[in-house]
Amino acid sequence: MTPEGDEFSLIEALAARFRAASGGLAAGDLGIGDDAAAVTLPGPGRVVLATDLVVEGVHVDLAVSTPEDVGWKALMVTVSDLGAMGCAPSHALLSVAAPSGFPVGRLGDGVAQAAEAAGCTVVGGDLSSSTLLVVSVTAVGPADDGRVGLLTRAGARPGDHLFVTGPLGASAAGLRLLGASGRVDGSDRVSEALASAHRRPVARIREGVVAREAGATACIDVSDGLAADVTHLADASGVGLDLTVGGGAEGDGMVAEGATRDEALGGGEDYELVVATPDPDGLRAAFSRAGLRAPLAIGRCTDRSAGRVLDGEPLPPGGWRHRF
Amino acid sequence: MTPEGDEFSLIEALAARFRAASGGLAAGDLGIGDDAAAVTLPGPGRVVLATDLVVEGVHVDLAVSTPEDVGWKALMVTVSDLGAMGCAPSHALLSVAAPSGFPVGRLGDGVAQAAEAAGCTVVGGDLSSSTLLVVSVTAVGPADDGRVGLLTRAGARPGDHLFVTGPLGASAAGLRLLGASGRVDGSDRVSEALASAHRRPVARIREGVVAREAGATACIDVSDGLAADVTHLADASGVGLDLTVGGGAEGDGMVAEGATRDEALGGGEDYELVVATPDPDGLRAAFSRAGLRAPLAIGRCTDRSAGRVLDGEPLPPGGWRHRF
Repeated sequence: MTPEGDEFSLIEALAARFRAASGGLAAGDLGIGDDAAAVTLPGPGRVVLATDLVVEGVHVDLAVSTPEDVGWKALMVTVSDLGAMGCAPSHALLSVAAPSGFPVGRLGDGVAQAAEAAGCTVVGGDLSSSTLLVVSVTAVGPADDGRVGLLTRAGARPGDHLFVTGPLGASAAGLRLLGASGRVDGSDRVSEALASAHRRPVARIREGVVAREAGATACIDVSDGLAADVTHLADASGVGLDLTVGGGAEGDGMVAEGATRDEALGGGEDYELVVATPDPDGLRAAFSRAGLRAPLAIGRCTDRSAGRVLDGEPLPPGGWRHRF
Repeated sequence: MTPEGDEFSLIEALAARFRAASGGLAAGDLGIGDDAAAVTLPGPGRVVLATDLVVEGVHVDLAVSTPEDVGWKALMVTVSDLGAMGCAPSHALLSVAAPSGFPVGRLGDGVAQAAEAAGCTVVGGDLSSSTLLVVSVTAVGPADDGRVGLLTRAGARPGDHLFVTGPLGASAAGLRLLGASGRVDGSDRVSEALASAHRRPVARIREGVVAREAGATACIDVSDGLAADVTHLADASGVGLDLTVGGGAEGDGMVAEGATRDEALGGGEDYELVVATPDPDGLRAAFSRAGLRAPLAIGRCTDRSAGRVLDGEPLPPGGWRHRF
């Protein structure tokens, strides 16, 4: 595959790559190649939609991440938004604005790998020349499972237990280790895992779907950092928070091995899910039955008037906000 | 509305603007504010999906187009792809990567105006800081009308008549007139119309839907230029072309008033539709009944072996290709 070239031959090469990555389209569906795609969603009812940007110099550093990593990340951060609603993606669109000479085909390889891992098919998109790499992925899927409502941010109630689906801070710690050199020194297991967490985040789609089925009341993915994202959930639900995340010594469950407490609370881009549920044992049992890692308890929702408390102190707002 | 500011307050302002522009969401649907949107499409069956990029310096020149124009264009070029399938958009997502200080709220106003004109609702998106303005719009709608198949590029047959839904070259002529100054000299009607065609293209959604209902066999929108786009249609359909577009004197139907023949053939960005049909009278009658401008005849599809002919000469490939 020769990714560089003109727009139409590049689209052909990407289309072939995406066809190879997927189980193919349903009969009568229309993928890349016409003005628009037409797809049959696996299930009736509403469509769930999300889109995310990955911008060079903001979300990715090309000295740290390969073109394949950038494609992987762009797909994963978008489908993570569907997972946080308790939904699985079925189809995705990829748009790439790339500088002359940028290996768009390699980026497409990463998108295809991530789409395969997430169980969705890339069915369309757009390409443009640019002076800055900007990648936009849109993901769609069936919203309704016929049993329970969507897992929004707004459903948590006082008394609900809060969990995260995995340790936090790994992405930020990975970026710290990768630093200016773009690689981790040595090859110890922990450093490699942190670098991978930064370059190749994994959306917790199955976790979101299982949490929804198990009666969870609210969910959000950790993209801005736990402190910021759990605050979004509490704002939307109108509840207070009493969080217990511990000191962040190595081995402390909520903080990823090799990461600091600050990285876990404020680093973001971990794409683990925060889940609220009135039935902690039911959630643990459902995750266990599904073969998923046991969720990590991080505290409770409280009455709104009790405020937001983290390890006995007021919760700092934290998180990353783009300024315009 | 103060568009500048941090990400979350800007999203709030945009969400309020998009709510005001639309007739609102269906009961149970979920718009901007959670991890993903969930929408009910007006009709059963497949979902049609398209996405397009608008990149500063490639698709728009901020010396020529206002932020509102950029937003309008980004929405319209995307929904044009749905119109070219014979489909109407129901919902859209907007992503904006914008430099510090760029008035994203004004861009959002243009998106909202265009969404209102196109009959769709903006239900989600993403915002990022950037060093270059890049706008990505994704549009979705119901693919199936229960009667006829999608209007792809691939259905034209030898003998079909070819039409365009309106005169071409206006966008390119408008850009030429706007030139470096960013405005047209004087205020004559023709120049204003050309400038508007460049800054505020209008997607021919109703025309696409009516053409599909009237038994058209293939359709494409004129984004790259008539020569290039009709070639895409002929390639996909496996047909030859015998086009008659005339000399381009003023008042010659296929060339917009004030535009040149070259601009009509190669300029692109007109977003008129090219429609193939075996029943030219039926198409004309359907357009007339719907109150649409009469379609302009531009020739016939021929057997593939007859090649592609324009006013008796071989058709130049033409069109604009992004290079990577």
